[in-house]
Amino acid sequence: MQKTPILDKIASPADMKSLSRQDLSRLVSELRAEVISAVSRTGGHLGAGLGVVELTIALHFIFNAPDDKIIWDVGHQSYPHKILTGRRGRIRTLRQAGGLSGFTRRDESPYDPFGAAHSSTSISAGLGMAVARDLQGRKNHVISVIGDGAMSAGMAYEAMNNAGALKSRQLVILNDNDMSIAPAVGAMSAYLSKLMSSERFLSVRQVAKKLASRFPADARRAAKRAEDMARGLIGGATIFSQLGFLYLGPVDGHDLDQLLPILTNLRDNSHQGPVLLHIRTEKGRGHPFAKESDEKYHAVPRFDLVSDDVKKSAVNKPPTYTSVFAEQLIAHAETDPRIVAITAAMPSGTGLDKFAARFPRRSFDVGIAEQHAVTFAAALAAEGMKPFAAIYSTFLQRGYDQVVHDVALQNLPVRFAIDRAGLVGADGATHVGAYDMAYLASLPNMVVMAAADESELAAMVATAVAIDDAPSAIRYPRGEGVGAVIPDRPTIIRIGQGRMMREGEKIALLSIGARLGDCLDVADFLKAQGVAISVADARFVKPLDKDLITRLAAEHEVLITIEEGSVGGFGAQVAQFLANRGLLDSGLKLRMMTLPDRMIDHNTQPAQLAEAGLDTDGILACLSPFIDAKIMEAVAMRD
Amino acid sequence: MQKTPILDKIASPADMKSLSRQDLSRLVSELRAEVISAVSRTGGHLGAGLGVVELTIALHFIFNAPDDKIIWDVGHQSYPHKILTGRRGRIRTLRQAGGLSGFTRRDESPYDPFGAAHSSTSISAGLGMAVARDLQGRKNHVISVIGDGAMSAGMAYEAMNNAGALKSRQLVILNDNDMSIAPAVGAMSAYLSKLMSSERFLSVRQVAKKLASRFPADARRAAKRAEDMARGLIGGATIFSQLGFLYLGPVDGHDLDQLLPILTNLRDNSHQGPVLLHIRTEKGRGHPFAKESDEKYHAVPRFDLVSDDVKKSAVNKPPTYTSVFAEQLIAHAETDPRIVAITAAMPSGTGLDKFAARFPRRSFDVGIAEQHAVTFAAALAAEGMKPFAAIYSTFLQRGYDQVVHDVALQNLPVRFAIDRAGLVGADGATHVGAYDMAYLASLPNMVVMAAADESELAAMVATAVAIDDAPSAIRYPRGEGVGAVIPDRPTIIRIGQGRMMREGEKIALLSIGARLGDCLDVADFLKAQGVAISVADARFVKPLDKDLITRLAAEHEVLITIEEGSVGGFGAQVAQFLANRGLLDSGLKLRMMTLPDRMIDHNTQPAQLAEAGLDTDGILACLSPFIDAKIMEAVAMRD
Repeated sequence: MQKTPILDKIASPADMKSLSRQDLSRLVSELRAEVISAVSRTGGHLGAGLGVVELTIALHFIFNAPDDKIIWDVGHQSYPHKILTGRRGRIRTLRQAGGLSGFTRRDESPYDPFGAAHSSTSISAGLGMAVARDLQGRKNHVISVIGDGAMSAGMAYEAMNNAGALKSRQLVILNDNDMSIAPAVGAMSAYLSKLMSSERFLSVRQVAKKLASRFPADARRAAKRAEDMARGLIGGATIFSQLGFLYLGPVDGHDLDQLLPILTNLRDNSHQGPVLLHIRTEKGRGHPFAKESDEKYHAVPRFDLVSDDVKKSAVNKPPTYTSVFAEQLIAHAETDPRIVAITAAMPSGTGLDKFAARFPRRSFDVGIAEQHAVTFAAALAAEGMKPFAAIYSTFLQRGYDQVVHDVALQNLPVRFAIDRAGLVGADGATHVGAYDMAYLASLPNMVVMAAADESELAAMVATAVAIDDAPSAIRYPRGEGVGAVIPDRPTIIRIGQGRMMREGEKIALLSIGARLGDCLDVADFLKAQGVAISVADARFVKPLDKDLITRLAAEHEVLITIEEGSVGGFGAQVAQFLANRGLLDSGLKLRMMTLPDRMIDHNTQPAQLAEAGLDTDGILACLSPFIDAKIMEAVAMRD
Repeated sequence: MQKTPILDKIASPADMKSLSRQDLSRLVSELRAEVISAVSRTGGHLGAGLGVVELTIALHFIFNAPDDKIIWDVGHQSYPHKILTGRRGRIRTLRQAGGLSGFTRRDESPYDPFGAAHSSTSISAGLGMAVARDLQGRKNHVISVIGDGAMSAGMAYEAMNNAGALKSRQLVILNDNDMSIAPAVGAMSAYLSKLMSSERFLSVRQVAKKLASRFPADARRAAKRAEDMARGLIGGATIFSQLGFLYLGPVDGHDLDQLLPILTNLRDNSHQGPVLLHIRTEKGRGHPFAKESDEKYHAVPRFDLVSDDVKKSAVNKPPTYTSVFAEQLIAHAETDPRIVAITAAMPSGTGLDKFAARFPRRSFDVGIAEQHAVTFAAALAAEGMKPFAAIYSTFLQRGYDQVVHDVALQNLPVRFAIDRAGLVGADGATHVGAYDMAYLASLPNMVVMAAADESELAAMVATAVAIDDAPSAIRYPRGEGVGAVIPDRPTIIRIGQGRMMREGEKIALLSIGARLGDCLDVADFLKAQGVAISVADARFVKPLDKDLITRLAAEHEVLITIEEGSVGGFGAQVAQFLANRGLLDSGLKLRMMTLPDRMIDHNTQPAQLAEAGLDTDGILACLSPFIDAKIMEAVAMRD
């Protein structure tokens, strides 16, 4: 293990202030090594943090956090920041149960002034903090660090548009590594590359001069005009200056001899209004393994520091839902030229990289731009294509209004492939796909399916291809399937048709989605004790299988709905149906199992399910009032 | 009534093709007069349509709709378009029951290729249609017309970012009138003004030259380089050209001698990739009354064509919920300097114009930018302010992910003032605030209130001011209150405390929000027939008043929830509580009244409520199975 004598002395940023320039350089190496060592144990986002080691050190050396607010966009590049801000002792608990979050979090440290995990929020957050400071008469600095990929999101533009008008003092550092999760896409990315290549790195002297020309105040107006003219002459103002920012850059983000004096200048000058400092960094710097990355190593599993080998379980696992979705979609697209696919900067995460390799002209990565992605898909559908918009449950929240207004209201057959629905493991609460059933099933025209296993997912992809007169959605969980055999030609499911899985009496479990496996396990445990309960797979959140549910209600004393989602989703649909049909009037004992009304932190998916009370133990607990205590005891003794 | 001999001959755009240049000018006058005449009868968005009369005529003269796709952003400027595309005969039914929509609608006409009503979707829609055309080997044109105000939305930027990279042939016409609903805000707006003022209108010759320099293909590359250089020399490339668009403009949008040849050139040239044509128009052109407008006359009520007098009901009406909210917030802000207010381009619609007049430094209009608005508010809350984000229910959908990720997850005390919750009248299905209870109450930490009348709204504003450890929301309907007296110092409501309004037996109505009035009316009708039913006002969608609901369930045979919102909201919260507490087990007859699972078109609010089955008749129908038929007959005979 590498020795880290300088880093060992840093319990908080205050301990950095007296470091010599030479010690700061040593700290760079030590901090980088520490990040690599930690992530090799825990897995996580490696490349992003390695790219900002110098920036992190420079920011904490020059600025005075937590009074000064340092806001990391997305937050996945904050591991070096966490190490320097009192969390080094817990850094090897990253993304583990009870350990540090893989993102910034307000409740984790005062040095995290704003939590993040979804992209492109940092300029809005920085502006809000700058405005609050001005209203409260404080003098602290506010710094937002945002990547070039995050700049494709409309939210970043909305914030710049507002910041440029409000003219609060605010620093935005555009950390340009030309590769967010996937290779950057979109015109903005091309534009930034052009900015980078058109000018050599700005020198410290040039930055100081640009800033100096902004004051003293009496000369400011004239200087500004002169500068505007000068910029015009040397090739046009940048988008950022056109939006009211003072644009500075590009600057080498790995050169402390540049970063330190420039940040000092930005701290001490009296410029009013927003400044954008454009720095160039290399993602994964300092670790050859991570640099080869592309999207694949955006987040890495645990690995061996010597061999770089990723630690993989030796067991042959079933395919992931993601890959089953991608393969099924490709198979349909082979014969149906109307199928097109859309991703919002998640080609590999959604499996659409495979689709793009096979059908490059029919695949669209629109950038981190879910609002546009959804309406773009709606227009493709309006013109007779069969668009599949593959967006994680948590990120589709970004395009919700477009789902309502452009898709559902117009009844356009956009197909939503909703990956990462339900609990997602190490990414934690910010990435839980909890709300999609509530926010989609409440919309008119929507068909909402949830896959119980990978074979069902295949059938539902076929079904979504066939549904050409209404919008539809398929939700499926993160991770591997259960090993279900996928037929060569999956059958189309009749819309709204659920299926009985076990016929029993007295008690019925009505499952939607992947909780079905645990329901069947519970039924099997009980069967072994001589108790037969019914289990049904609803398959459709909407439209409901009314005949199936009516039968379950009529033939059982107890009906339990179970879903890996929030209140307001599947259970709500079932309850409203039962209530308004009078099916509750005779005393049916309805119970509704949903995710609890609280955030579930990062952990393994099974542990999260247990915490949520949605695993076999949770189901048994829900059943226990209705089953003989001795049988429940016997079941509890199972191994 | 003005004579319209040319317009009388236009049954569809095909009839325009043979018109002489002189006849086209006459058509301008006639079409403008027709729009004014129609809106004077129906009310509606007057200024926007009057500003694009020449553009509408030019587009339909030059292009070949419906094969060529003309997409009107927001759609409220489409009245002239509707008149020219076969809907003149119904134009005086605009926004009336069974009549034309006030926006574009796919199911209304093949000339409306994409429905709109929420802002800033047209570039995404145009890009999707352009891509579909390319994939299908068609040759039609795609034209999106978008206002300068709509350009503040992130979605427009996301679409441009994608369009600039995809390089499909697509025309975006930026209709710049420097005034969307409210005076335009933000850096983009200032930038556009600068673009306008820095150059004189481009001549037809200049446009043709710019386009011509793009081809023939063999010379294109060299020409492009030369042009880029030239642009650099004359003051910098525009934001649009930096994002990959060919920028042309500005052009006088009222001069057919400019528009006709330029659009012809844009139709016939072989330029590949997106083009942005920047035109300058005057909102409300041709009608002095509408021009004085500002936000107030964005949408106008019916008016007298001769006197310009707005037709107002003579009766003194109670104040609107909007104005009560604004006045209450101002009163609190007088003594609480932490209160700040945020609107997304709806200062007058939300009442925040009054707040801004009183507290200009504490009021923020961020533009059409709900995503940013919500996160900006979250950051203000993180820094100890008390932000009130006043956003219509339907528009808050645009900021949904930010509500989840930045507000609820971080448990930051942002206060959402959700105006236009429920059915909204003439704006129709696109503006119905149906989903907020489902999408907010499913989130952890959220406190969600709904005001039954204006006095309750005042109390809830006081309550939201006081709730400083969690996010909260108040929903309230469009329009006037019921005349409830607002106390000088409204009392803070204990969180989660509902109230009994009528004590009865057997049947209980559990209302949330403004449906309470009809519930009380129903109780009174029945009381007159000797039947006493209970009525309660839940006040909180979340947290529920568990004691109250438990008591209602225990003491009645029938419990009916009623809400002006979709499935998945209040009723779902109540049902899950009742089910999991075992309160349904003894055969409580639960009924859940919500908005139906379909879109409700434009109409008066009372008519929409009747259609939704949520008025007194709807409530009585729900009650009738549980009440003696003779009594129901007697109630039905009421006048």
